[in-house]
Amino acid sequence: MKVLTDYLWFNTPKRREMVRITDQVADIVARSGVHEGIALVSAMHITSGVYVNDWEEGLIEDFGAWLETLAPSGLDYRHHQTGEDNADAHLKRTIMGHQVILPITGGKLDLGPWEQVFYAEFDGQRRKRVVVKVLGEGT
Amino acid sequence: MKVLTDYLWFNTPKRREMVRITDQVADIVARSGVHEGIALVSAMHITSGVYVNDWEEGLIEDFGAWLETLAPSGLDYRHHQTGEDNADAHLKRTIMGHQVILPITGGKLDLGPWEQVFYAEFDGQRRKRVVVKVLGEGT
Amino acid sequence: MKVLTDYLWFNTPKRREMVRITDQVADIVARSGVHEGIALVSAMHITSGVYVNDWEEGLIEDFGAWLETLAPSGLDYRHHQTGEDNADAHLKRTIMGHQVILPITGGKLDLGPWEQVFYAEFDGQRRKRVVVKVLGEGT
Repeated sequence: MKVLTDYLWFNTPKRREMVRITDQVADIVARSGVHEGIALVSAMHITSGVYVNDWEEGLIEDFGAWLETLAPSGLDYRHHQTGEDNADAHLKRTIMGHQVILPITGGKLDLGPWEQVFYAEFDGQRRKRVVVKVLGEGT
Repeated sequence: MKVLTDYLWFNTPKRREMVRITDQVADIVARSGVHEGIALVSAMHITSGVYVNDWEEGLIEDFGAWLETLAPSGLDYRHHQTGEDNADAHLKRTIMGHQVILPITGGKLDLGPWEQVFYAEFDGQRRKRVVVKVLGEGT
Repeated sequence: MKVLTDYLWFNTPKRREMVRITDQVADIVARSGVHEGIALVSAMHITSGVYVNDWEEGLIEDFGAWLETLAPSGLDYRHHQTGEDNADAHLKRTIMGHQVILPITGGKLDLGPWEQVFYAEFDGQRRKRVVVKVLGEGT
């Protein structure tokens, strides 16, 4: 059994941003030497998430607008009594999911034709991390 | 360590449909020879999902109506400028989740009394796939 | 490869309650002897969930109020024709997620500074279970 752990760092220019990370995860999988297994890709901060969906700019904008409808910013959240102003970011990341598990088959990410992995930042402009843990059988 | 990978194919008659797949997944687990481990069950298309919930027709209809409220079809989504008409399917599958990890204990799926695994199709009537990756200790 | 399976039992005084379980999961991980791997933490009932987010009372109340907006109780759900009254609990747990996979690095849960694991009960006041399956390389 082989295990490799690595971390991706982000510091997004905008407060909210979807960042495609498929290639970075694939690189870590290649380095791991795992031939059959899984890769856990998980946000380590609670105002960001990781999800799999389409790499299409219009849909990415749709996600942003939709999340603002379901979990609006600027409301009088109880969390804000602590001095925070990011309660909506906690809710938005809950909708998108905070982690994914990607299958590895034949040494590569076993993704469908349109599956792309994204980091979803909802309270950015500071350094944040995603853990990638690859685990499985080596060659 | 044992690993088995298999795929389930779907081509639902209706555009939206919830398909129970607990038995198919259990069959793959049995074939894997894994005694203690996990099974990843993950949609390979970005307009469908996999979730665990109740096998009760009324609740399944409730899910459908509820998803239509949270992520309505027929809106003027930006994604539709590409010629697509399925942005709502991307959003609906995000709510339901695109994958589950099922524990395997004593060679069997370790599910609670009411837990059933479903494939959630939101843009069907064509061939689509789910990957099942079973991983763990053999007997 | 090492695997340890354990179960956490709950019987919450209130119908809806968020219960922090980070320490219980960490104890199971310590007992497992797994040095590099993952821990699956998954609700075995379909009206409760498991999620990772902030241990801040205000935000936990925000989550409760928000879920009531997105998936209200007391509606005339079809599921209630079976005699049940908890359709909203099935929907609320779907938003929060029913399971998480936690990375284990150097023998410990590899969590970010604010990540806490919660059991989310939406139909409590009776005995319910969470499965914890730890899997990976021993020391």
